[in-house]
Amino acid sequence: MKLYTKQGDTGKTSIIGGRVDKDHLRVEAYGTIDELNSFIGKAVSELEQEKFKDLIDDLTAIQHELFDGGGDLANVMKERHYKLTEEPITVLENRIDALSEEAPPLKRFILPGGAPAAATLHIARTVARRAERETVSLMKEIEDVSPVVQKYLNRLSDYLFAAARVVNYRLSIQDVEYIRSGDVFK
Amino acid sequence: MKLYTKQGDTGKTSIIGGRVDKDHLRVEAYGTIDELNSFIGKAVSELEQEKFKDLIDDLTAIQHELFDGGGDLANVMKERHYKLTEEPITVLENRIDALSEEAPPLKRFILPGGAPAAATLHIARTVARRAERETVSLMKEIEDVSPVVQKYLNRLSDYLFAAARVVNYRLSIQDVEYIRSGDVFK
Amino acid sequence: MKLYTKQGDTGKTSIIGGRVDKDHLRVEAYGTIDELNSFIGKAVSELEQEKFKDLIDDLTAIQHELFDGGGDLANVMKERHYKLTEEPITVLENRIDALSEEAPPLKRFILPGGAPAAATLHIARTVARRAERETVSLMKEIEDVSPVVQKYLNRLSDYLFAAARVVNYRLSIQDVEYIRSGDVFK
Ligand code: B12
Ligand code: B12
Ligand code: B12
Ligand SMILES: C[C@H]1O[C@@H](n2cnc3c(N)ncnc32)[C@H](O)[C@@H]1O
Ligand SMILES: C[C@H]1O[C@@H](n2cnc3c(N)ncnc32)[C@H](O)[C@@H]1O
Ligand SMILES: C[C@H]1O[C@@H](n2cnc3c(N)ncnc32)[C@H](O)[C@@H]1O
Ligand SMILES: [Mg+2]
Ligand SMILES: [Mg+2]
Ligand SMILES: [Mg+2]
Repeated sequence: MKLYTKQGDTGKTSIIGGRVDKDHLRVEAYGTIDELNSFIGKAVSELEQEKFKDLIDDLTAIQHELFDGGGDLANVMKERHYKLTEEPITVLENRIDALSEEAPPLKRFILPGGAPAAATLHIARTVARRAERETVSLMKEIEDVSPVVQKYLNRLSDYLFAAARVVNYRLSIQDVEYIRSGDVFK
Repeated sequence: MKLYTKQGDTGKTSIIGGRVDKDHLRVEAYGTIDELNSFIGKAVSELEQEKFKDLIDDLTAIQHELFDGGGDLANVMKERHYKLTEEPITVLENRIDALSEEAPPLKRFILPGGAPAAATLHIARTVARRAERETVSLMKEIEDVSPVVQKYLNRLSDYLFAAARVVNYRLSIQDVEYIRSGDVFK
Repeated sequence: MKLYTKQGDTGKTSIIGGRVDKDHLRVEAYGTIDELNSFIGKAVSELEQEKFKDLIDDLTAIQHELFDGGGDLANVMKERHYKLTEEPITVLENRIDALSEEAPPLKRFILPGGAPAAATLHIARTVARRAERETVSLMKEIEDVSPVVQKYLNRLSDYLFAAARVVNYRLSIQDVEYIRSGDVFK
């Protein structure tokens, strides 16, 4: 197998059921989902198996789901069937609730950081938000986009925030509050 | 407390004193400042307390200042008071001068890398520059933006360069010069 | 030497042979190449010298080549001579073939991750693709751009994929297949 096909050396590329410019909003959006997926892989590589088995399991499921969502954005076939459904969003919500209860209650913004894996989860959180913004741009330009992906990314960024806090909490690292923060969390 | 409010599932989001599309240049700019802040948190997580106390103190102050600047970009209230002032820029300039004197003098571009924390500081440097570019785009579209934020980000990227060099220097790791570089630093 | 010149505090910046807005597509593209270069520096910082001498040598050569390509994008002089040539692309292709043969054969997409350095190489892969997209945008707007840079970035992202797989293989970490993947690699 040759990994490189040279078919993209001209600035155009294949999607599922078509061919578009490489800087098309669609490619931008699933390309950023791929970037997000890679940061999640990085966070997993920094988490110890024993203390964080639950988070590693969550994050691995999320990696598969990001492929589902990315594939849905890459798909322009006439008869298509989306892979990412509402169900994983409900799962994320339940996990956010559970993790938020484990970590100490929160009133003010906290500085992103702490343990290396927590810091990477904060990075992933902000890349999820970048992917969400690009998905919104795509949806504004093209009507025909699965609405689940944006909603999933929105919830995922909250999950990653909750997960970062739990990592620090289990390692007895205290999150530092933003000194000039108001009481923003209700 | 429920972390997720579902209010952003439609592609619109709240700012301080308004509601805008999630892919608005304003959201783009402070979203990237949040990403930058997270990479700085990552660098801090990789720096040893003893050898780099001064840098950790700088970087922590910078994290608070990035919240100030991000909040200023998120604020469209009629009567507003910006949190980020010129003063932290002067502090950055003094620190750049001090760190530049500690590291060996420089004529040519160097490859970004070295120790893990130095490599992360170089990444943060380039993300600061990305945030600066987006802030410039915002200022070109909308007159009513605090001018301090762009200037702060500009200086911050130079601080992060100087800090990366000092990390390598204190760890006796030599920066590698770009072989085909001219003498670019004057 | 003063590292900061304050000449960019107004939103404009110098390129080789001109002066442009900081958010010009040209600055965007070589700024992202700088970001990519920094992630490659990070990967190098995570690779052990003994097991991965070949990859470290590849990645160091690539860092110099990214300066060549970035400089070519920054250059608008009338009489100019591009630094990045076709030759390093051929070298990349040979290395992709060799590394693809070392790692187990592939049919389906794999989750980005594994060892820390492999995870970082996957991140760099996706940032190379972001840099490629921005270079394509620049080429669409401005005819007068070296065509080698986009082709180089395209091949580089495939190299980084192959390298990530070899890192995991040599460390006996098995890549996890995306469960709902079709047989996509031919
Ligand atoms: C989308 C895509 C991606 C996405 C995938 C993830 C995602 N979901 O976001 C992203 C951007 C991440 C990606 C990354 C990469 N990719 Co890619 N990717 C593709 C693409 C466009 C589609 C692949 C796909 O998902 N196909 C659909 C699959 C098979 O869906 P399915 O549900 O199994 O089946 C569908 C259809 O096949 C159909 N169907 C299935 N069975 C049947 C049966 C019948 C009877 C019928 C009627 C229909 C039918 O119905 C389904 C409906 O959609 C292909 C090019 C192409 N057009 O095929 C390249 C392609 C597979 N990628 C390629 C490469 C090289 C890569 C990267 C290595 C690039 C890089 N350097 O980063 C990475 C590897 C990533 C990894 N982690 O493994 C190459 C592989 C080259 C090769 N040697 O074979 C391809 C072929 C592109 C190319 N260069 O030509 N990729
Ligand atoms: C800006 C913002 C951010 C920025 C903040 C940082 C920055 N500065 O760049 C960023 C993008 C980083 C961010 C991130 C997040 N955020 Co946020 N964010 C907001 C937002 C829009 C404003 C918060 C704020 O700064 N308010 C202003 C504060 C209180 O300013 P202040 O100086 O203290 O007071 C001002 C006014 O209140 C007034 N004032 C103060 N006191 C008084 C008194 C009187 C008498 C008067 C007249 C006026 C007055 O004057 C000041 C002038 O501005 C709110 C939504 C909203 N519109 O409130 C969400 C919000 C707080 N965020 C939220 C969330 C969930 C998050 C994230 C977890 C999202 C994520 N998944 O990443 C992260 C957490 C980040 C962290 N590290 O902790 C949620 C919280 C939900 C909840 N359960 O409560 C909110 C409510 C949005 C929502 N979903 O509805 N956020
Ligand atoms: C392009 C550029 C970058 C690129 C460079 C990499 C790349 N290739 O992508 C990037 C974006 C990465 C970059 C980063 C940085 N940069 Co810079 N960069 C420049 C810029 C615009 C050009 C430098 C350059 O490559 N010149 C061309 C070189 C010298 O080419 P050359 O092949 O050797 O020679 C050419 C000509 O000189 C001519 N020539 C050569 N010899 C001769 C002889 C004769 C007789 C003739 C006729 C012609 C001739 O022919 C060649 C054809 O092009 C300069 C500003 C400027 N306009 O000079 C700033 C500049 C060098 N950068 C600067 C700074 C501060 C930085 C950063 C620290 C910023 C940051 N905070 O991140 C980093 C450092 C990066 C690092 N790792 O070391 C400052 C330095 C300030 C100082 N104190 O001197 C400058 C001067 C900008 C400024 N602020 O004014 N930079
Ligand atoms: C917490 C705050 O973050 C902002 N916000 C909401 N979604 C995004 C996103 N995808 N990217 C960046 N910022 C976002 C809104 O202003 C919200 O109120
Ligand atoms: C060092 C060089 O980097 C470029 N430059 C200046 N500001 C930025 C930025 N925010 N992002 C990317 N490149 C930038 C200019 O070309 C400058 O001369
Ligand atoms: C493997 C798949 O990735 C997509 N693709 C090709 N080039 C890029 C890029 N620069 N960025 C993001 N996605 C890309 C195409 O859809 C290709 O088929
Ligand atoms: Mg949200
Ligand atoms: Mg600058
Ligand atoms: Mg390609």
